[in-house]
Amino acid sequence: MNFILWILLGSTLGLLFSFYQANVVMKADEGEEKVKNISFKIRKGANAYLKRQYKGVAIFFVLMFIIFLIMSFFGYISIFVPFSFVIGGFLSGLTGFIGMKVATNANSRTTTAAKKSLNGALKISFKSGSIIGIVVVSLGLLYIALGYLFLDWYYSDLQEVERLLQVTTNILTFGIGASSMALFARVGGGIFTKAADVGADLVGKVEVGIPEDDPRNPAVIADNVGDNVGDVAGMGADLYESYVGSLISSCALAVAAGLSTEGVFVPLLVATLGVVASIFSSFFVEAKEDASQKNLLNALRRGTYISSIIVAVGSFFIVKYLLGAENLGVYFSILSGLIAGILIGFFTEYYTSDNYKPTKNLADMSKTGPATIIIGGLSLGMSSTAIPVVIVAISVLISFNLSGGSNDFNLGLYGIAISAVGMLSTLGITLATDAYGPIADNAGGIAEMADLDPEVRKRTDALDSLGNTTAATGKGFAIGSAALTALAFIAAYKDSIENLVKSGEYSFEFNLSILNPQVLIGLFIGGMVTFLFSAKTMDAVGRAASKIVVEVRRQFKEIPGLMEGKGEPDYESCVDICTKSAQQELITIAIIAIATPVIVGLILGPNGVAGLLAGSTVTGFAMAIMMSNSGGAWDNAKKYIESGVLGGKGSDCHKAAVVGDTVGDPFKDTTGPSINILIKLMSMVSIVFGALILAFGIL
Amino acid sequence: MNFILWILLGSTLGLLFSFYQANVVMKADEGEEKVKNISFKIRKGANAYLKRQYKGVAIFFVLMFIIFLIMSFFGYISIFVPFSFVIGGFLSGLTGFIGMKVATNANSRTTTAAKKSLNGALKISFKSGSIIGIVVVSLGLLYIALGYLFLDWYYSDLQEVERLLQVTTNILTFGIGASSMALFARVGGGIFTKAADVGADLVGKVEVGIPEDDPRNPAVIADNVGDNVGDVAGMGADLYESYVGSLISSCALAVAAGLSTEGVFVPLLVATLGVVASIFSSFFVEAKEDASQKNLLNALRRGTYISSIIVAVGSFFIVKYLLGAENLGVYFSILSGLIAGILIGFFTEYYTSDNYKPTKNLADMSKTGPATIIIGGLSLGMSSTAIPVVIVAISVLISFNLSGGSNDFNLGLYGIAISAVGMLSTLGITLATDAYGPIADNAGGIAEMADLDPEVRKRTDALDSLGNTTAATGKGFAIGSAALTALAFIAAYKDSIENLVKSGEYSFEFNLSILNPQVLIGLFIGGMVTFLFSAKTMDAVGRAASKIVVEVRRQFKEIPGLMEGKGEPDYESCVDICTKSAQQELITIAIIAIATPVIVGLILGPNGVAGLLAGSTVTGFAMAIMMSNSGGAWDNAKKYIESGVLGGKGSDCHKAAVVGDTVGDPFKDTTGPSINILIKLMSMVSIVFGALILAFGIL
Repeated sequence: MNFILWILLGSTLGLLFSFYQANVVMKADEGEEKVKNISFKIRKGANAYLKRQYKGVAIFFVLMFIIFLIMSFFGYISIFVPFSFVIGGFLSGLTGFIGMKVATNANSRTTTAAKKSLNGALKISFKSGSIIGIVVVSLGLLYIALGYLFLDWYYSDLQEVERLLQVTTNILTFGIGASSMALFARVGGGIFTKAADVGADLVGKVEVGIPEDDPRNPAVIADNVGDNVGDVAGMGADLYESYVGSLISSCALAVAAGLSTEGVFVPLLVATLGVVASIFSSFFVEAKEDASQKNLLNALRRGTYISSIIVAVGSFFIVKYLLGAENLGVYFSILSGLIAGILIGFFTEYYTSDNYKPTKNLADMSKTGPATIIIGGLSLGMSSTAIPVVIVAISVLISFNLSGGSNDFNLGLYGIAISAVGMLSTLGITLATDAYGPIADNAGGIAEMADLDPEVRKRTDALDSLGNTTAATGKGFAIGSAALTALAFIAAYKDSIENLVKSGEYSFEFNLSILNPQVLIGLFIGGMVTFLFSAKTMDAVGRAASKIVVEVRRQFKEIPGLMEGKGEPDYESCVDICTKSAQQELITIAIIAIATPVIVGLILGPNGVAGLLAGSTVTGFAMAIMMSNSGGAWDNAKKYIESGVLGGKGSDCHKAAVVGDTVGDPFKDTTGPSINILIKLMSMVSIVFGALILAFGIL
Repeated sequence: MNFILWILLGSTLGLLFSFYQANVVMKADEGEEKVKNISFKIRKGANAYLKRQYKGVAIFFVLMFIIFLIMSFFGYISIFVPFSFVIGGFLSGLTGFIGMKVATNANSRTTTAAKKSLNGALKISFKSGSIIGIVVVSLGLLYIALGYLFLDWYYSDLQEVERLLQVTTNILTFGIGASSMALFARVGGGIFTKAADVGADLVGKVEVGIPEDDPRNPAVIADNVGDNVGDVAGMGADLYESYVGSLISSCALAVAAGLSTEGVFVPLLVATLGVVASIFSSFFVEAKEDASQKNLLNALRRGTYISSIIVAVGSFFIVKYLLGAENLGVYFSILSGLIAGILIGFFTEYYTSDNYKPTKNLADMSKTGPATIIIGGLSLGMSSTAIPVVIVAISVLISFNLSGGSNDFNLGLYGIAISAVGMLSTLGITLATDAYGPIADNAGGIAEMADLDPEVRKRTDALDSLGNTTAATGKGFAIGSAALTALAFIAAYKDSIENLVKSGEYSFEFNLSILNPQVLIGLFIGGMVTFLFSAKTMDAVGRAASKIVVEVRRQFKEIPGLMEGKGEPDYESCVDICTKSAQQELITIAIIAIATPVIVGLILGPNGVAGLLAGSTVTGFAMAIMMSNSGGAWDNAKKYIESGVLGGKGSDCHKAAVVGDTVGDPFKDTTGPSINILIKLMSMVSIVFGALILAFGIL
């Protein structure tokens, strides 16, 4: 049992490191009164949002807890499900909460540090980002390790093989709480942030003609709150879910592959190594004062690359020691995932950064107006799906075959699952480079609102613009790993149903041929549900944004002297509206994600469910990449024009590009990054409701 | 052999009817000199385009003919493939050519008839539409019947079972010529028509501020030519391909289902019945002079409903007589397809017509500018995928199970294939109601350009606006039947590979489980290729349109007195540019469609190919519906605003709606309707290259 000790040690180390870093950040100077005051308002808004969100989510969790309790009472699920559901959801929410706390305290400190130097601002914001990153991975790992310990103790009177099966089968259901919470956090936060952003821009920039982050705009605080609840808290919960998902699916598949305890621990130890590597490499992120965009990017990349090399080398020894030389192929599965992640990140950058042709060409399309830049952006996003799909395809082929899939099918599936672990092993540091972006964005907003020296804003802008690139890369990781994890979940789903059948209570035999009408229809519905989910999330943003538009217009009309900077806008009402709408809109979306696999299962049986999961993974992967990249490219095309080309700010080209950017907002920050959660939540629901479906299904 | 006689009789009747109708149309008054002159210009442009397109296509066909000849020389395909490829392509092109001829002669006659009465104009345009519809089905049916006769004679020394297998295996490859031609015609025509439309609008309406169809706009003739080469010739070739595809796949699957000659003839006889029913019901399309939009729609619907009832009743007796009471379930497969087609058509209308809430709400979103109407339209299209997917799912379940799939899997697959035949059986009349739209559109353009009494334009507008609805319905049919036919093709592909293996030369065993990495990767690539194809077709429109923009701007600048109506614009140069760009852009797109299944096959083997086909069908079905419906809804939201709501023409809302409409143009007329051809062409390529892949594949 010394493996588990290592894991506990690693995750504890991560938490201690984060605690230490948080102290360092908090000790930094928060700055002048005005800065403090604005930061306080943002923090207050973010707090209010999360409080309300958690209240709403609590109702859902209590409801599901009762349902699960009843189901476990009748023997359809294990008694651990309701509790692991609540604990998993709680931890996922906690990561989001910590992230928000850190970010809303770091924003003013970054602003203040930027008054002195670029490197100082980078250090504060990146330190804060690394806290978020390391907390996510440490809590994820700790959760699984403690769960493992508990289950291993609970089943200690069973034989090893049987015990391991029980433990991993139960651990497999540990993801549903995290996935549910992640959906709420990501979609809710995404609706909030984009409703505020779009609403603020539509009235502020377009109608009234005041700049971004102007304190006269009543939605400006809501906009800055949005960065924290969407891009920080939402993303934290999302990646916590991805991380946990990749780990539990490979643990479960290890048993099916006949690898026993060692096979279960390989993914967990690789992840532990990743936590330590992330902490270590975070110390190498540093920039010179006269740093160019490129230097800054290199500073961040140094961190990622160092930790990747550590994991690439270290996991070789982990695999060799645990699985022996005869299973060394598993190492190449891990390596292929790690490399695939980096490559997807690179191509995401290629398609969305204005350093490269695609986004430059897109900016050019603004010359013929908004319609052509919209068509161009959609087509850019669609084209950009090709390379990531090929990368994932190659990674699947390599990880399946080299891990031994051609001789032992289950070993190959384990290889696919563990390649996702490889991809996410450096999550601590990639998430750090991702999470620092919204902090810098907020810092810039504060500088603007507090009317600081333009040099400060220039420095935070340099950091923020870089954040757009790293955010795109981070999304690439989340989506790429989701594709691999989702495949692993389909395999795990099949195993879990077969284990139920073996237990003797149910009879069912899989026929997963794509010509089986159940599978086929499942595939169709899986493809469709991705479209439907995307539609509903975009609609939700649109509806919430139009409420903000109405409110901001009202304030400009009714509050005397607001436009002249004499009246005080009512920031809180905008925060309130965003908060309320986000919660309301979530209900339908959550129902789609949870009800679809249950209904499909009841009508089409487990074959149909497997088809559904495959169909949603296939379509969802392409759709998520398209949306993230279209949105990222529109955003950067606009920024590129603002840098002075094609007439610069205020030109007709710029106006067209703003339309593109606005369309891209829900694409890249609400719908795109939520799709991967949808896919995995549907898998988790399918696994948890497996016995119910066998018992009550029509087919 | 008296079955084949009936089929020959039916298709000959169809051709005679079309010939007779063509005479009636040609005898109608073409009108005054000015009208004649404009119509002549459009005809000339359309002729020039088709000539150039066929020249380009001829090179492709000669190239492929040689490749196929070499392949057949080495025994990888039957010697019939190169010839059926050329003949199939020729016939598909012929339907397009006839359609264009009819349409470009009918436009002026419709204009002239509209000077007298609405009913007169409806009659001329609908008669012309019905010629196109009936020619498509008659030629399709005749092609298969004559092919059958020839092959049956060629293999007459074989035993019946073996002979039938040879005949249907060869007939299965009959579709590749039609599919290739359809891709060229639909995509090429789609690029032409939308480049001209977008280009004409961007300069004419937006920059210079002259109305649509203004004779001063140099791209106005190209725009009207586009209606004929895209919406008539392209659509004709497209649906010819769908029709032939549904018939050959069900003929091939009949043999696998052990149904012998009778099973092969059921789809063909149902189709024959459909031809006769379409002719018969076309006589019932008539409107009163004071007809409202609703009356007109009812007039058209009467035709569709009558022929549906005839087929619904008649095919019962066909199935009962040919397959006996024990296989009566096959009848319900046909019926489910027929009903599914009507339902999909209805819901397409619901989502895209401004008589219903979705499009009305979409128009409302123009209040907050172009970005929100774009987001709204995308989300409307995505939402609208849900119901058609469920309809197709139910139809697959019914047609599979009721035809006997639960006992005999192959019988079930035959059921799915024949449900597509049921859906397309009334194609003669649905295509007529679809093809009349662009004729009325053209007639309106001529009325405008010839400066006729506004009453004339009002009448043609009434017809045209209805045409938008029926066109959307027609696209629903094409896409719905494509999903079913594509599924049948996957089954047929498996059979054809297995037949090759049985012949002893190759060894291969299918493992079509979605957990097989080959299948999985195939699925991913299938989903991705749909996105890539969509991107490339939209890009092509964008590039071609920007060339038109440059040319139109040049003419307005360089031709003296053009704006004042004194100078004569150079219409031909715009037609030329559209023609050339469309051809250039086609090359990449054709390569994607043809190379993908071959490359996937060589690397991943037949399992990967099956996955590819399934993935592209699943994603492509949703994508095609989304694109067609988003585009249709934007178009009608704009028209709705033009009718006077939200400030009417020229208001800010209208400007936002024009952006939506422009984005929707390539969606609904280029990319959306081409996706179904992509899916089927990839299936045909997979089938034809099956032996090559078995011989040279890596896996």
